[in-house]
Amino acid sequence: MEKKAVSKQTLQRLPLYLNFLKQRDPLSNVSATIIAQALSLNDVQVRKDLASISQRGRPKIGYITKELIYDIEQFLGYDNTQNAVIVGAGNLGRALLSYDGFAAQGLDIVAAFDLDNNKLGEMINGKQVMDISKLDNLCRRMKIRLGIITVPAFAAQEVCDMLVEAGVLGIWNFSPVHLKVPENVLVQNENMAFSLAMLSKHLSEKLTDSQE
Amino acid sequence: MEKKAVSKQTLQRLPLYLNFLKQRDPLSNVSATIIAQALSLNDVQVRKDLASISQRGRPKIGYITKELIYDIEQFLGYDNTQNAVIVGAGNLGRALLSYDGFAAQGLDIVAAFDLDNNKLGEMINGKQVMDISKLDNLCRRMKIRLGIITVPAFAAQEVCDMLVEAGVLGIWNFSPVHLKVPENVLVQNENMAFSLAMLSKHLSEKLTDSQE
Repeated sequence: MEKKAVSKQTLQRLPLYLNFLKQRDPLSNVSATIIAQALSLNDVQVRKDLASISQRGRPKIGYITKELIYDIEQFLGYDNTQNAVIVGAGNLGRALLSYDGFAAQGLDIVAAFDLDNNKLGEMINGKQVMDISKLDNLCRRMKIRLGIITVPAFAAQEVCDMLVEAGVLGIWNFSPVHLKVPENVLVQNENMAFSLAMLSKHLSEKLTDSQE
Repeated sequence: MEKKAVSKQTLQRLPLYLNFLKQRDPLSNVSATIIAQALSLNDVQVRKDLASISQRGRPKIGYITKELIYDIEQFLGYDNTQNAVIVGAGNLGRALLSYDGFAAQGLDIVAAFDLDNNKLGEMINGKQVMDISKLDNLCRRMKIRLGIITVPAFAAQEVCDMLVEAGVLGIWNFSPVHLKVPENVLVQNENMAFSLAMLSKHLSEKLTDSQE
C-alpha cells in the first residue's frame, strides 16, 4: 500500500491506538467503534484514521488486531530501525539511554556525546559516552539522521548546528530553547518547562477558585 | 498587579524568554525587539506577551532584565513552590527525581511511589520510594496537587484515578495513554511516542525525496 499523507492529529493518535491494540488478544477482531469507546475519542475520526493507514478493514467485522498493529507499525516506520545519537549525558540523557521502550518504536541510540571529560569512555546501558569532537565523524560514517539534544539551554543551539552540519535531518530537542534550523530539518520539542508552566497556572487558578 | 489570563501560546513562549533573559546581564536593559530578534519570533507578539505579564516596560527603554525575569517568574508561579509526587520509579521516574532543573521552576518532587517491592525504601536523590498503598494518605496529608505519571501504559489510568481520588488537580503524564479525568483536573501530556512518530515520518519522507 502506498503511504498516504496523514494529518498531525492522526499521527498523534496512532501511538494511542497501538498501545490499546497491544493489550488485546492479537487474533481478536477490533473495530473503530471499540477503539473510539475505549479511548474516549470520536468514532468517525478513528474510522478515518484507520482507513488512511490500512486497507484491511471490513464492514461490520473491522480489523484483526494483529494485522492492524502491523499496519500501524509499518506506517510509523517502527519496523525500520532508526539510528540516533544523543548529545548531553546528564541526568536526562542517561535516562533516555537507559530507557528500553524506544526499541519497540524503532529507535536505537547508538552513542552519546558530552563535553565533560569526566564522563568520556563511560558506558551507559552498553552505549559509550564519546567526546563531542567525534560527533561529526561518527554521524557521517553511520549515516545518522536523528539527533537528541539533552544539553543545558546555553549549549543547545551550538549542538544543534553541529548535528545539522553532520547530516542530521531530525532533532528531538529536550532543551527549553527555540532552535534555528534549515528548512529541511524537523525539530520536535519536548518542552518540559512549558508543560510545567501550564500545570502551574492551572493549579494556581484552581486553588484561587477554592479560596485556599 | 492582577494576573491577567494569557493564551496558551503566550504561556508557551514565556519559558523561552526567561531562558534568554537569564543569559544576560541582570542590570542591562532589554526590549521586546531584542528578545524577538534573538529568538526569531515576531516583534509585535513578544511586545504583547510582555505587556500582559509586566507593567514596567518603558517606551524606547524597555525593561530592566532582572525585573522582567522577576515578573515572568512571578507570573508563572515559580516563586511559589509546588509539591508533587511521582508514580513509577523506573528509568524515567528516576531521571525526573534526579533532575535538578525543576527546582528553578518551583517544582519539588517530595516522594516517589512504585508497585515493585524491590524498589521500596530505596532513596533516589534524597527522595524515598514508597509503596503505592501509601499514596492517598501522603497526598492528603501534604496537600499534594500535582502528580507525575511514569508507569507503563497499562497501569496509567489506574494510577491517574488514584491521584485524582487523593486530591490531585494537575497530572503530568509521561505514559502514551489518553487519560480520563474529571473536568477540574488538567492533564499535560509529555507524549514521547508521538514525538518519535513525527520524527520518524519526517525522516522517511526526506530520505525518500533524496532517493537514498
